[in-house]
Amino acid sequence: MSKSNEILIGIDLGGTNILAAAVTPKGQVLGRSKVKTKAELGAQGVVDRIVKAAKNALKEADVAIDHVKAAGIGAPGVIDFKTGDVSSVVNLRWDYLPLGKILKEQLGVPVHVDNDVNVGTWGEYQAGAAKGHDNLFGIFVGTGIGGGLIINGQLLHGHVGSAGEIGHTCVNVNGAFGRRTLENIASRTAVVNLITSLILANHPSCILDIVEGDLSKIRSKIIAQAIAKKDPLTTQVVRESANYVGIAIANTVTLLSLPCVVLGGGLLEALGSPYLSWVQESFEKNVFPDDLKKCKILPSKLGDDAGAVGAALLANNVFQK
Amino acid sequence: MSKSNEILIGIDLGGTNILAAAVTPKGQVLGRSKVKTKAELGAQGVVDRIVKAAKNALKEADVAIDHVKAAGIGAPGVIDFKTGDVSSVVNLRWDYLPLGKILKEQLGVPVHVDNDVNVGTWGEYQAGAAKGHDNLFGIFVGTGIGGGLIINGQLLHGHVGSAGEIGHTCVNVNGAFGRRTLENIASRTAVVNLITSLILANHPSCILDIVEGDLSKIRSKIIAQAIAKKDPLTTQVVRESANYVGIAIANTVTLLSLPCVVLGGGLLEALGSPYLSWVQESFEKNVFPDDLKKCKILPSKLGDDAGAVGAALLANNVFQK
Repeated sequence: MSKSNEILIGIDLGGTNILAAAVTPKGQVLGRSKVKTKAELGAQGVVDRIVKAAKNALKEADVAIDHVKAAGIGAPGVIDFKTGDVSSVVNLRWDYLPLGKILKEQLGVPVHVDNDVNVGTWGEYQAGAAKGHDNLFGIFVGTGIGGGLIINGQLLHGHVGSAGEIGHTCVNVNGAFGRRTLENIASRTAVVNLITSLILANHPSCILDIVEGDLSKIRSKIIAQAIAKKDPLTTQVVRESANYVGIAIANTVTLLSLPCVVLGGGLLEALGSPYLSWVQESFEKNVFPDDLKKCKILPSKLGDDAGAVGAALLANNVFQK
Repeated sequence: MSKSNEILIGIDLGGTNILAAAVTPKGQVLGRSKVKTKAELGAQGVVDRIVKAAKNALKEADVAIDHVKAAGIGAPGVIDFKTGDVSSVVNLRWDYLPLGKILKEQLGVPVHVDNDVNVGTWGEYQAGAAKGHDNLFGIFVGTGIGGGLIINGQLLHGHVGSAGEIGHTCVNVNGAFGRRTLENIASRTAVVNLITSLILANHPSCILDIVEGDLSKIRSKIIAQAIAKKDPLTTQVVRESANYVGIAIANTVTLLSLPCVVLGGGLLEALGSPYLSWVQESFEKNVFPDDLKKCKILPSKLGDDAGAVGAALLANNVFQK
């Protein structure tokens, strides 16, 4: 059992799952616990499950709570990272919750709350793909599309705490209504919806066989199978979505003159290198000046752990000051 | 005549004109001098004219060179702001010039060189429309479209020194070739070209009368006259270009969660409030989250002086460290 009080708890609060981890200050995961979020239980129910997952992770790591320095949590919605209050957590139907204060009482350690994508980016910066890069953009393509920015070694929160919201930037002004922002065009949700509607309109695709006719079963893994089989419809939809992701990354790198980008999220995890190379190709076509073509788009290294590890290390950073 | 050595020289080097100013540390212009750039004279010829303009400005201000603390210059092209070297100055056909070093020798004071749009943004931040805002985006719409970023009170240069290049971001991925980036769609050059080609294709416009049939005479002031006369063609072209400028500003404010934007450049100077309100309308439609609708788009206050004043004040900042 750890003797020092250097261990951190990191928590990734998602709409479906809660992942908690016991993490060293160097980002090593000593133990983890994944539980269902069960948003239908309401705020107190979800908080109970967060605490349970955190305690499970400590138990798995064989670390007592009095050896924990601090806990960090990445949450969706609008976060006041100074107070730890969260609001507009649409996924969980929370209007407002003083999450940091509640968790601090229940865990008995200092708690830092930040945006889920910010902590994921921080994790990749401190212990993942972007280690050693003090300026970077993290972009995560999944149900939605979120981003986080590290400028001069600091997480950029911005005026209302919303910095990094690349998913809500417009990349196709003349697109149809609902097809103008990056998230609406290129998230996994958008990709699945487009594939579904094309198949329903009788465009041929091997996906229909893979899901045995049940289009509600289309997930990232199904898309990966179809691409491995060189299904023309799926390949074209995903390639075009990757083109938009590459453009949004190029716009960000052009605007901020960045040396490094980390790309993560469910779509990349499932599709791997073809997806990454399509994004990279579009990025290089669109970035300015040419010198920035050498900016690396690195695949996320921490995968599912990025949020929990990042939350833990961010809390370590916040509470060492 | 000034007794201290607190006066700054600020120089705005453009493709057409050089504007030099003698500036106090608070941004007050004591004297200015504007001369033609005459790029055809070559690098040494242009440098001679820069020095001449600087000395004229001091003379007009009744300040001796030994009362000058430092000089700053904003130049187009790729700038190494640490060495003062400039390269790829397309407007002036300079491949490479150690401009900072040469000017330091000829003026006998420390010289800081930076990008022309960066110094304009710094001017508006220190002494213009954005005074007191430590986080802001400056965007200038003229022959091209450039931008500058202040983050936590510091000019952001980025990895290859090119930060702020909003003109080269893509806002309309499915636009025709040459109509995808903001600069190619919404610069004064793009607006003039589109109006010209529409008139040549026999679309009616009062501009044909204003320029007495000579379409090569279309300038910002002519466009302003046509809009004042409610010319439908001109109004539509400029409104659509303002829509794109508003989208690019919204994308930047969304990404960085900024509280403040300064809009300047020839098109705004000539067109004034209708242009600003069209940009603002588009911005508010596209920014995320709603809280950022309150981000102010402020019209440039320093106008033509922004570059020279900003260069002077930036040099003051650099050399007081």
